[in-house]
Parts: sequence; structure tokens; C-alpha cells
Amino acid sequence: MIQKQFSVNGVERIVFVDPEAPLSSILREQLGLTGTKVGCGEAQCGACSVIVDGKVVRSCALRMKRLPEYAQVTTIEGIGTPDNLHPLQRAFIKIGAAQCGFCTPGFIVSAKVLLDENKKPSREEVRDWFQKNRNACRCTGYIPIVDAVMEAAKVLRGEMKAEELDYKEPADGRVFGSYRPRPTAVAKVTGTLDYGADRGLKLPPNALHIALVQAEVSHANIRGIDISEAAKMPGVFKVITHKDVKGKNRINGLPAVPYNKCDGWDRPILCDTKVFQYGDAIAMVCASSYEEAVAAAKKVKVDLDPLPAYLNVQAAREPDAIEIHPGTPNVFFTQDLEWGGDPEAAFAKDGVVTVEERVGTSRQPHLTIEPDVGFAYPDEEGRIHVYSKSIGVHLHQAMICEGVGLQSDQLFLACNPMGGTFGYKFSPTMEALVAVAALDTGRPVFLRYTYKQHMQYTGKRSPFFFTIKMGADKQTGKIVGLKYEFDMDHGPYSEFGDLLTLRGIQFTGAGYDIPNVRGQGRAVFTNHAWGSAFRSYGSPQAFMASETIVDELAAKLGMDPLEFRALNAYREGSVNRSGQDLDSHSLPKMFDALRPKYKAALEKAKKDSTPALKKGVGISVGVYGCGLDGPDSSAAFAELNPDNTITVGSSWEDHGQGADAGAIGVAHEALRPMKVAADRLRFTWPDTFKTPNSGPAGGSRSQVMTGSAIRVACEAMLEGLKKPGGGYLTYEEAVKANKPLRYDGAYSVPGVPCDAKGLGKPFMVYMYGIFMAEVTVDVATGKTAVDKMTLMADVGKVNNRLILDGQLYGGMAQGIGLALSEDFEDIQKHISLISGGLPFIKDVPDNMELVYFEEPREYGPFGAAGCGELPLSSPHVSILNAIYNASGARVTQIPARPDVVLKALKAAGN
Amino acid sequence: MIQKQFSVNGVERIVFVDPEAPLSSILREQLGLTGTKVGCGEAQCGACSVIVDGKVVRSCALRMKRLPEYAQVTTIEGIGTPDNLHPLQRAFIKIGAAQCGFCTPGFIVSAKVLLDENKKPSREEVRDWFQKNRNACRCTGYIPIVDAVMEAAKVLRGEMKAEELDYKEPADGRVFGSYRPRPTAVAKVTGTLDYGADRGLKLPPNALHIALVQAEVSHANIRGIDISEAAKMPGVFKVITHKDVKGKNRINGLPAVPYNKCDGWDRPILCDTKVFQYGDAIAMVCASSYEEAVAAAKKVKVDLDPLPAYLNVQAAREPDAIEIHPGTPNVFFTQDLEWGGDPEAAFAKDGVVTVEERVGTSRQPHLTIEPDVGFAYPDEEGRIHVYSKSIGVHLHQAMICEGVGLQSDQLFLACNPMGGTFGYKFSPTMEALVAVAALDTGRPVFLRYTYKQHMQYTGKRSPFFFTIKMGADKQTGKIVGLKYEFDMDHGPYSEFGDLLTLRGIQFTGAGYDIPNVRGQGRAVFTNHAWGSAFRSYGSPQAFMASETIVDELAAKLGMDPLEFRALNAYREGSVNRSGQDLDSHSLPKMFDALRPKYKAALEKAKKDSTPALKKGVGISVGVYGCGLDGPDSSAAFAELNPDNTITVGSSWEDHGQGADAGAIGVAHEALRPMKVAADRLRFTWPDTFKTPNSGPAGGSRSQVMTGSAIRVACEAMLEGLKKPGGGYLTYEEAVKANKPLRYDGAYSVPGVPCDAKGLGKPFMVYMYGIFMAEVTVDVATGKTAVDKMTLMADVGKVNNRLILDGQLYGGMAQGIGLALSEDFEDIQKHISLISGGLPFIKDVPDNMELVYFEEPREYGPFGAAGCGELPLSSPHVSILNAIYNASGARVTQIPARPDVVLKALKAAGN
Repeated sequence: MIQKQFSVNGVERIVFVDPEAPLSSILREQLGLTGTKVGCGEAQCGACSVIVDGKVVRSCALRMKRLPEYAQVTTIEGIGTPDNLHPLQRAFIKIGAAQCGFCTPGFIVSAKVLLDENKKPSREEVRDWFQKNRNACRCTGYIPIVDAVMEAAKVLRGEMKAEELDYKEPADGRVFGSYRPRPTAVAKVTGTLDYGADRGLKLPPNALHIALVQAEVSHANIRGIDISEAAKMPGVFKVITHKDVKGKNRINGLPAVPYNKCDGWDRPILCDTKVFQYGDAIAMVCASSYEEAVAAAKKVKVDLDPLPAYLNVQAAREPDAIEIHPGTPNVFFTQDLEWGGDPEAAFAKDGVVTVEERVGTSRQPHLTIEPDVGFAYPDEEGRIHVYSKSIGVHLHQAMICEGVGLQSDQLFLACNPMGGTFGYKFSPTMEALVAVAALDTGRPVFLRYTYKQHMQYTGKRSPFFFTIKMGADKQTGKIVGLKYEFDMDHGPYSEFGDLLTLRGIQFTGAGYDIPNVRGQGRAVFTNHAWGSAFRSYGSPQAFMASETIVDELAAKLGMDPLEFRALNAYREGSVNRSGQDLDSHSLPKMFDALRPKYKAALEKAKKDSTPALKKGVGISVGVYGCGLDGPDSSAAFAELNPDNTITVGSSWEDHGQGADAGAIGVAHEALRPMKVAADRLRFTWPDTFKTPNSGPAGGSRSQVMTGSAIRVACEAMLEGLKKPGGGYLTYEEAVKANKPLRYDGAYSVPGVPCDAKGLGKPFMVYMYGIFMAEVTVDVATGKTAVDKMTLMADVGKVNNRLILDGQLYGGMAQGIGLALSEDFEDIQKHISLISGGLPFIKDVPDNMELVYFEEPREYGPFGAAGCGELPLSSPHVSILNAIYNASGARVTQIPARPDVVLKALKAAGN
Repeated sequence: MIQKQFSVNGVERIVFVDPEAPLSSILREQLGLTGTKVGCGEAQCGACSVIVDGKVVRSCALRMKRLPEYAQVTTIEGIGTPDNLHPLQRAFIKIGAAQCGFCTPGFIVSAKVLLDENKKPSREEVRDWFQKNRNACRCTGYIPIVDAVMEAAKVLRGEMKAEELDYKEPADGRVFGSYRPRPTAVAKVTGTLDYGADRGLKLPPNALHIALVQAEVSHANIRGIDISEAAKMPGVFKVITHKDVKGKNRINGLPAVPYNKCDGWDRPILCDTKVFQYGDAIAMVCASSYEEAVAAAKKVKVDLDPLPAYLNVQAAREPDAIEIHPGTPNVFFTQDLEWGGDPEAAFAKDGVVTVEERVGTSRQPHLTIEPDVGFAYPDEEGRIHVYSKSIGVHLHQAMICEGVGLQSDQLFLACNPMGGTFGYKFSPTMEALVAVAALDTGRPVFLRYTYKQHMQYTGKRSPFFFTIKMGADKQTGKIVGLKYEFDMDHGPYSEFGDLLTLRGIQFTGAGYDIPNVRGQGRAVFTNHAWGSAFRSYGSPQAFMASETIVDELAAKLGMDPLEFRALNAYREGSVNRSGQDLDSHSLPKMFDALRPKYKAALEKAKKDSTPALKKGVGISVGVYGCGLDGPDSSAAFAELNPDNTITVGSSWEDHGQGADAGAIGVAHEALRPMKVAADRLRFTWPDTFKTPNSGPAGGSRSQVMTGSAIRVACEAMLEGLKKPGGGYLTYEEAVKANKPLRYDGAYSVPGVPCDAKGLGKPFMVYMYGIFMAEVTVDVATGKTAVDKMTLMADVGKVNNRLILDGQLYGGMAQGIGLALSEDFEDIQKHISLISGGLPFIKDVPDNMELVYFEEPREYGPFGAAGCGELPLSSPHVSILNAIYNASGARVTQIPARPDVVLKALKAAGN
């Protein structure tokens, strides 16, 4: 330990530190300044940026021994406070530049130094700065952040008053349909919102830190686990193995359909008989400090008997492959689609042109800036409370109770404020682990994954491997049939594998009228990373197949790819891939609106292309549903409080998508007759102990389902508090009149699950979009740059415009990553943000155009649909199609990293 | 554990807490808001005051289960920041209302609510508020705090600009002699100064918490210590007993004179063979958390063989009393005084009137607001660094090295910012304990005493029991002789007991010309609390005897007590009690200046007295030395830094008395030719690893000795950096010219230690004063109220007037406590601030008058003496004399609690 004297936010401090410890730890753990967030912990993401002697420094990498004596350190807490916001903070709020907010303090701190050095930066200089300082954002697509910096700079130059950055209410006072900043924005831009790791540091002193003992092989039988040496290590309270798990020690995978060959009980909480994938948890060391827990975890000896590791579907489907879960075939689920007649018959007809292709998708990692984190504790009655990044608190409660060994009234799940999850938290990750540890130790327990653990031991997007064939009539240009099959690599755990296969069936070929379709999807166990949800779940894989084949077919027909699509697109009278009537018929209008932009883009590409840098334009159609399969439902409440605020209660989990603003927007609209100001509405943090089951925050369902439940609750409140002579009762009046103060709202939709032939009404609300990508392909290197993305979007009536823009920008940025760089194929290598392929600011164009078609939806609140999934449904295919348009190179396997594109360029004769 | 949602300084927080934990712990330990200080932890001192929903709340007592959901909590961090000070903070700085600063956040937070509720309070309303809210201060005497609140209120009412509260430099730019606020003031008023307990919370996560296993008897032999069960308790890293101490396991008591019968090696670090006093440390449990350490400490079994407990000198001097330290007599040190002839011969002469009296003093507790606290850690080379409230870092290093088992280059002591110690930290308390624990565990270790531990296991002022006789010539009124003897109860440990006895000899009868004196003091071991230094060390006991007997003699002579004193006071040609020539002859001037005030006071008392409430005026003379006995010395340095600031380096420990301002004041004066701005001078925090041996900060020696060493260093710097053509070299120029950047200054005085007859030149600088107390005695209850204190003070030239005023106010307030309420006689009962008798604001008059006589001192820097001890030398006796003047009741044993006064009133015929 050494003594360091330095100044933090203007206060001189003498602090006693481990010389090897990073500045971020000292700021957060020793000085309590948790405004500085730590993302990757490897100096890749810039979340932990602070200012040291006037320079931006990634504090996770600055070891204390290197901090100059008397250094002047400024953290987000020193930039501005909720009462006294810096113009950058005001601008980030106004522009909606903070979505999940986890990277926000780092961006603001970084931008502060930029604007200290350069009072009038250009947008490109702002982008260069964030690129240089490695400030990474996974939510926003970066554009709002650059917007915010440009606005703040104006204030700092004196060209604008700071107050002009404050949100102005529209004349009609409406919140629904406005640009109102989200309720958590101030806390996010000031670093005062406590995320899981922040709360973990603020637990009582008896909290234990958990270090995992994890498998370092992908498949093995377990012979024995020796914890004796570890248990004696300093600070160790308990070493927990499967023997200590009081319940079934399995996560309930909740099979969705009866023809799933799994019972769902395949994923262990702590491995007992077998290791199924690299990183599987075998033991937990609970110790007084993280360092002690890690040191002891190294002393746990695991005796393993290695088995062949099946790291892809081919290997797992080999005839001599053993069953990963003995008793269950590795191909554990098959889903067919039958619509119309046999496509092969249609293909065989005269004048029909067909194309057949094999396409494959990647194991896209979610690349969240915040790694997985959570904690649990026993309450006064011994009940266990788990706080995590769960985006399905009631769902996960159902999935882990039995495994942990508790009834649902003994185990509660709640959300911490959290960084974007983009769906990986639709699966429980550490919830069962911390619940087991809290139950076993009787103490609060805290677990935070390192970034490597976060990469290796959370679910990934499951790759699909398609064979797909489509035919169209040469004369009419009409598609006559579609036939495909795919294997889906779901890793070793079955949970939601049936649903994911179903998504492949629901969206392959979506957007088009196709009379004859046959498809089959197969879910396969492997020993690679388990498959979890990821934004637009299943559809990027489906569209990878169908939007590629459509493009190829158009080319073969000699038709313009936009016109071929427009000709075949859904229209009045169409049904979707599940045989269901459409809820909106916006696609033709969108094609009409896109057409002139498309022509101009083609022209520009032609003009600007050079033999070395080829430019092209690509199109793709994207469709996604809002909801769970079939008859989805949600619950919420509205409650009048003693201070006459109204609590808008639900379990709408917020992982940056804006549950707070969503709930308030709907509630405010529903309560307009009461004339209640938006800042008198309180949203709730989801907690199965307190808030009703609103279902998970995935599949763009929350606004439709929970938004509607909130609407219903608010309408009940209006009715319940109405005064006979007009107006509404106050709290005091309601109490006096003996009126209820709380009004529950339930909402459900009459969906019908898909049957064994893939037909039904899985979603009552859909989103529709058309993507147009403009790219430049460097023929020498194979490197592709996306110059612009355009999205024609129909997500129904808009609740919050600020948040909607952010969702679409951010989703398309992830589409760029999906198309060009992101992967988790190499378990050893793809373990960081950079090696995993995260797009930094210069990988994302500063030019993304959004055009809305606000078709009202019958089943959404005030006509709104969901929105989060649409932008990642098929943007990647528009990029691949643009590469083809630019260069003739057809990429059929993502990511289209330079080597892949080079190969395709060569195949195309470049 | 429960979840609580509340707002802290405007930020909404969800925090997970033990429902029984106090809000203060959550704020400090879980949220890192260490601006809220915890003093007593028993809701008695108000240091931990915060605002909860608009009300002042002592956060140490508000259990989290009682905190309302959605409560609005405001801490000092939410009142203002260093960059944005609240008017209360500015006023506290300007007025010098923060001395040690430990109680300051609590006062400011409390005053904030007062001024929210009452925009124009009277001074008495301010006092009522702080009384009601139990805001306690041990340093300031409260007057500056009330001043500051009144000033801030003006700003808040808009009658004054906030900027008017900022310090304005005098026209000549001088710092020496000015009212410049102390350098640490901003940090103190904003709660950003980290005291020991704050730093303890900010140690690295591997730090261990220590819980002491202490004796619960006062005297016993130890048969055995069984740690086996404790060692197995959760979180325990190590249970340390005397067997683990690598050194001699004794504190070196450093006997000062050869005729001390002790070798000084009597105080164990951890008891081995015997327990010597209640609270003695027997073992230390080092665990991951404090709670775990405490739980385990309860499991240590100590097998004791009780011995008779000698809790006073009578018991310890009984002929059959066993030796507390076998081999050393319980009367371990005797000091005589012989000056002139035999006083009995003088008393026997005709016309001589004599009085004989027995007087006793109390075991005054220091009643600091901050309890004892410290930590230690091994550095990268295994050397141990101890950070504590030591006010003698080099002294304590010498006292503990051998006991711990380390060389002086392996063990370093340093100061944390600290609350007032008033001398208890002249003895090491926990330094050796934490050093042993850090050495044994190899970890950082932290130890904070509860207030009860702080009371029971730190040193106290040792009581003196006098028999004293004085005679004067009836005709001339001249004192002819003084004879006395006293037993001093030093508890079981010898350290500094010889010096304390010597102080009794040096100050009994000080202030007067007395031709014939015989005295004897005896230091006695008992099993009560060990004796440590306390402000004015030894002199309140000595003056209790001599200023009582002087008063009684004046009465017997029928002379006015002021005139009798003035007649006999030191004057030109006088020598002091050590036979030494005087360094200042200000007493006669002071009597002349006091006389009209005294007469007016007497008149007023007479006029305002009623039979029920009797008023009176009392006088006492106080004298104290500045320095250690004999040839004292100090060292300092001045160093030019790369940024052209100058480090004023020394080990001048600051326990609230203003070492920071003292050092800067002297250095600025010395460096005036360089024209360096005061804010370019950096003071140092004492650390034997870095700063030279300046000697301890006790006995009002620092300004004289270390101030002079700083002057010498600065003068060397002036000489060294002088340019030939005038002006001084900058850092760059000095480096270029190859000139030294650091200039050391050493200073020593030609003192002569007192000999076995009590004669010598123990101090080269003294302080002189006359106290006048005005009191009201409630005849029915015996309760005494002090209405006013006046102090005529000669402390030489004034360095910092703000700090000097604060020292004198605060010292006199402690004199009121010493006189009327403070004691630590009952080991079980006197364990809190209130039961220990701390004066709250309404116990201290709002009227204290200070009159300075700035006689320059030869040996002090720029003529300054010390100042801290003077105000507590004899103020209590002026109060007792005023009680006598009011009511005829003569109190000879302090504290003069109501029952004591009632008894004396009855004896006087009331």
C-alpha cells in the first residue's frame, strides 16, 4: 500500500492505495465516486473516462503508482450536479444522448476536455475525438451524442443560453408524441444513477463477494470438486458447490410447445455431473472481498473427464456424436412451416426462375458496455431478494425458484438500473447463483462478471445455417414459392430454443406475398455458447436468408431489387408468414417514399465510385412482431399518493429502451382529463415483491402490452376518482370519500400460438420497415464502410420521439456490427469489445435517415406499436446487398469482415 | 436487510440496508458521504446532524427502519461545495468558527434548518437552537459559531452580499498578526476534510477492522487467553494476543529524571501477565468487517485472577497495598521544591496570617467530539506506517518502536486530520496496537474506538490532592511563605508522571513573589485511568491549590482579592517558581487594566443579586510555560517547488489549534522580502517518513519552537535564493544556478531542566493571564451559571488573531466544565459526553471578553509566545472564587456540581 496525495473535483485528498490498483477502483470503491462507471475494465470502452491534469484518461487502466503526485482529477461528479448541470449534461438530456446511460459519464467527461481544447469543433472532429479516446456506446448509434456536443459547444461559446437546452413543453401540454427527456436522464448525465455495480459497492459491510470457479473446457464429466484448500483461504466465508444447492439445481427452460424433445431442465445452476460449455459455473467462493474470493477460487480443484466438444451443428449432428444431454437428441426441436402448395411444384413450372443459396449467421455477442452484475440478500423473514439486470423479473422467478429450492413467495427478483442488455438478459444469468449464495450464507452477496466472464458466460445470438430456395415468374416478377431449411446452433441449453426456431419460421420471407412455402427449422445442442435472446430475436437470421435470396432472385430476373421487392411486398389482402391478416399495410407507401431516395442514392454511388473504392446501395425489408407468441398479457396499476403524485406501477424493465418514459408517456395521455403534470407521475422499478407481472421487456412487447395495461389502469382511475360535478378527487378527498386509491389494469391480446405447421396469430401487432444502406467497398482490402443508412419505419403512433429516434439509430448501428464485424466464434479470442467487433463511432455513419409512417395499431396504446426490434431485423442484409450492388461480391456468411469480402470479391471476379 | 428509497442531496437512491443500522452508517459507509462525521454515536453531540424532511436529525441515532420512505435527506455535501459555498460556510470560515472542524458539518447543517425556519434569529435563539439540537463543540467556546450564524443570516436576508464574508487581505499584505482563515477551513466547512474514520472507510478493500478484547476489571492477574472459538468466527483473519507481539510488548514511558523509580516499561501493548486498569487491551480481533470483529471478540475467553483494585491514592498508599507493578513502589516519583527559607519560620513570625486548606481536583476527561481512531499498513517494503491522532509523531515513534519490535526506520507515524485532542494524544493510545496488527497480518488495519472505549481507554487529567498553607504579613499584605504537598493519582502507567509532578511544582503559587517556598509532589500508581496530558498540563491542579489559598488568605486579611493579588504579583526583578527570571512583566499592567472592569463587575453583581440567585465575581492568575522542560528544540524546512509554491515543512501536528495557519503565518512573515502570496505556501501533514522532528504539539511549544525553526528555514531560503542584483530566484532559475531548493531550519532554546529541588529554567517563554469570572449561584439548587468570563492575556505578539481568539474562548469553556461539571471518576457511569459533564452551548456564556497585552518574547518567532494552555490554567478557580464571592461558599474539590456547591453553601451558613 502507498499513500497518494491528489485532488479530486477540487478537493485535496490523501488516499491509501494499492499501487497496482487502477484509479477507477480508488474513485469508486475507496472514495465512493460511483459516477465513474467501469465497463470493460480493459481501457476499450471509455466508460470510466476521467480527467487527469487536463487530459482524458481511462481510469480503469491508470494504475495508482502512475498517477502523478498532486494530480488534478475530475470525475463526472465534478462536471456538474443535478442542481447545477453543465451545458454538456443539459444537451445530453435534451437530445436524448443518454439511453441506458452507462457510457454517458465517460462521454461527457471526454467531451468536456474536447471543448476545453477546441471551442468550435466540427462534427467530424467530435467523432475523431471519441474515436481517439475510445468512447464506446452500444445504444445510441452515436448521432445523438455528437448532436449534444455540438449544442453544448454553442452554449459554451456564448452563442446560445444554457436555458435553451431545457425541454420546452408543447403548447398542448401533451407528453405522448413529444420529445420529452426520459425521467432518469438527469441521474444518468450526472453519474448519480446507481447501476448494479454501484449498488453492490453500497451494500452493507457484511456483504460477501462472489468469485466463480468456471469450466475451462467445453464438455466434460465431473469426477470431483475439492474445495478444502479454498475454504481455508483468508476472507473466505463459504465455498459453494452443487451440493449446497437446496433445490433442483437446474434452470427451468420453460419449453413452449409439446413437441419440444426437452423437458427444459438441462441447464445446471452449478455443474454437478457435467460441464456443458466453456465458462460453466462449478463453484462459488463467497468472501469478504472480491480479491480474496478470486484468490480462493483459484484453489478449488475440479477433477474433469474431458468429452468431445461439439462446437458447431455439423459436429453435434454427426452420427457418432454422443448426446450432450444424455436421453435427449442433440437435434432437440424441429419446427415446420406449411403454407399453400409444394413450392417445388411451383418452381418446376415454365417461366419460373429459381435461386438456391446457403447462408449462415454469426454468434453475435451483445457487446453491452456494462458487464453482467447482480446481488441478492435474505430479508428479515429469510426471503431471498435478487437484484440484477433481469428484463423479465417474473419470468426469471418462474425459471429459477425450483432450481434454487424456494417457493415463489420466498424468492423475489428486482431490477437494478442497468446498462443496455439488448436481450441477453431475457435469460437468467447469475440470478440463480446469487440466490443460492444468499440462501446458503444468509448474507448479502454480490457478483460482477469481468468482461471476459461476461463474454464467455452469458448467452449469444444463435447462428442459423440455411439452405434456401426461391422462385419467381420471369414474366410477372411475382414470387411463386419459397423453400428452406435451417439448423440453429443453440449451444447446450434448451431455454427458448423452440421459440427461436419458431421466429426463424415466422420471419423467413416475411414482407412478401408468397403463395407456396415449405420450411423447416431445427434446434441443435452444441457445446458452444448457449443461445439467448438478442434484439430482433431470430429475425436477423431469417432475413439473412430471405433478403439475400430475394436480392439474388431480383438479380437473376434482371429486376431492380427495390422494384422486385415492392412488387411482391405485403399489401391489402396479404397474410403474413403465419397465415395471419396484417395489422398495417404500410409497406407499399414506404416503397413509394423510398423510391426517389433510392434512385438518388444509386446515382450518387455510381458517380462517386472509383475502381478502388466501389460504392453501392442495398435494400432489405424488415418485419418483427410485438409480443410473446400467442395470447400475451400484462398487468399494471395506477395509485394516487398522499402527495397527490400518481405512481404508474408495473414491472416494465428498463434496459435503456426507455421504460420510464414509455410508462409516463402512456399514463399521461390516459390521464389527460385529470390534467396531471408529467412530473407528478412516478414510474416504478420492477420488483416481483412489489410490482405486478407485466411480462418480460423483450420482443418489443412492453409498450403494446404493458403500455396498454397502464392505459387500462389509468382509465380505471379516471372512472374511480371522477367527481359528480366534474373534475377529479384529490388524495384527501378520495380518502374522505372512502374511494380506492389504487387501480389495477390488466391487458391481454387474442393471439393464437403457431401450430406444428407454423400457422397461427403469434403477434397482434407488428413493425414494418425498409432499410437502405449506402456503402463503400475498398477493393484492395475488402474493408466495407457504411456511408449512410435510411430506414422507412412503421412502428405505429409514436409515444416518445426522442427515444424512438435513439432506438432506431442504435439498432441500425448494431446492424452494422452484425453485418461487418461482430462475432463470438472463437471462445478464447472474442472475449472483449474490440475483438468481439464492437462498432466504434467511426464505424457508424454520422448520416442515418429515419422516415416514420405512423399507422395506428388496434392493439397498442393510443395506436402505438413497439419499436426496439425493427432496426435490427434486417439492416445487415441491406449492407450485404449494397456490397453486392457496389462490387458484385455476394457475402452469404456474416460478419463480412474484410477477408470474407475479399474472398467474395475474388469469387465475383474482382 | 431491507430496501430503502430516499433522496440524498437531491438524488433519489435505492439503498440496501440493515434496518437496525443508523442513517449515519449508510451515508458514510455505504454512500461514501463522509462529510457527516460521527462523534459520540449516541445522539449526544450533534456532529452527525443531517436534515431529514426539513428537520435536524442526529443521523447516528436514526435507525434505517424509521427513515420514512421517500425521505429527503440533506447532508453537508448538499449544503455547499468548495466551489459553491453556502453563506453559512463562508461565515464559518471568516469567523474562524471551525477549529478542529469535526463538529462543523453538524453545526452548519443544523444552522441551515434554523435559518430556514427563522430568518432573523437573536443570538439567544441561535443558542437555544443548538442547545435543543445538542450541537456540541469542544474547541470554540461556541461564541464564534453564533457569530457566524448571525453573519450568514444577514446574507440570507439580503442585508449583506455573500462576498462580504470573504477574507480581505490587509493593506500591507501581512499574514502575521492578521485574521486570515486557516488553510484547512474550506475543507472543514464542506465536510471534505477526511478525518481518521473517513480515511479508514476509504482504505483498500483488503483492510481489516480491529475489535479490542478489553479487561472489565481494574486489576487482575491473567491466567490464560483462549482465542480458539473466536478464530473460527466468520470474517476473522487473525486474533492477536501478546504472544504475537514481536517486540518488548511495552510502551516506553521515557522517564525524564534519574530519580524516577520507574524504568518506564510498565504499560503493556497487549496485556500479558496482568490487567492494570479497566479497559486494558488483552487481544485484538482482525476481521473483514467491524461487525464480524466485534462478534468474534466476544468469543475470546480471558481467564483472570482478580486483585484488589486501588482506585485512588489513599487506597494505593495503604501500607498493605500490593505493588501494582511488582518491584516498583506505588509512590513511584517524588519531586521537592525548595526556594528561600523555611516557610514555617516565616509563618511563625508576628503579624503573619496563615491559611491552610485541602483541595482536590478531578479526573477531567478530554471530552473530544471525535473518538480515538487510527490505522496502519505495511508498505511495499514491509515497513509499517501508522496514521493516527498522534500529536507527537516522533515522540510516539520513540515510545512504541521497541515494544512493537521494529527499528525506527521500519515504523513511521503520521497524522490524520484530526479533531481536537486537548492533549490526550500526547500519549500514544492505539498506535502500538495498530502497528502490531499491521505487522502481524501484513494488511492495512483500522481501529476506531466507540465513545465508551474512548472514555475508558484513553488517558485522563490526573487528580491532585493538596494540603497547602500560605501566610502573609497583615500589615503589608505581602505573602511571606508557601508550603504544600500533594499526591497525584497517575493511574497505572508511569509515562510523563514525573513531568506532571514537576508541573505541579512549577505552577503552584505561580504569578506571585514568594520569598520562602517548600513543596513536595508525589506521583502515585493506582488502578484508575492512566494519566495523560491535558491542556495546561498540571497547572489547573496547581492553581486549584494556590489560587484558592490566595483567595482565602485575602479574605482572612480582609483585603480585596484583586488588590491582594496585584500587590503580590510578579514584577520587575521577580523570579518564577523555578527561580528563573521572567520573560515578560505584564501582570501589573494587566491588573491595572482589569481593575475598573472588576469594580464594575462587583457593582453589577451586588445590584443584580437576589437572595435566591446570588451573584459574585472571582479572580485568578494563570501562568504556563511554552516548551518541554529544559533545552527544547525543533526542526523544519522550506522548499521551493517546481510550480514556485513553497512547502513549509515540519511535523507541527494540528489538532485544531491551527498548525496550518501557524506555520503559514510565520513563514509568510519570514519570507516577506520574497513577496510570496500566502496561498503559494503549502503546509505539510506530519509524518516521520517525510517531515523532520519538530517535537510534539503540546505545552504551547509549537509556535515558539517549530515556528522559530520555520523562521530559521525561511531565512536560510532568503539567503540561498537571493539574487545579486536584488530579488529572488524562481524555481527554474535556482535549478539553472544549481542552488539548493530545500533549506532546513533548526531551533533550540537554552533551557535548564529543574533539579531535585525544583529549580532551573524549564521554559524560555511563558504566558501570563488574569481571569475574571462572573457567576450566579442558585442557592436552592446549588447550580452555578457562569455569566461572563474576562481574560487579560499576554501571549506575546499575535500570529493569527482569529485562531488566538478561538483558543482562548475554547480554553475558558473547558475551564467552565472543569470547574462545574466534568469528571471521569465513575468508570462505569462517566462514559459519555453528557455523563462526563461536557458544557453545551447554554452552559457557556455568550459573553467572554479578551484583552491582549502583546509583550514581545525573545525566544518566540517575531515575538510570539504560545497560547493554547493559558486559557485553561486557572479559569476554574476564578469561577470557584466567584462562587465564594457570591455566596460565601468555598468549594475545594472540583467539579463544583450542584450537590457540592449546596454542601459548601450549607457549610457557609446559607
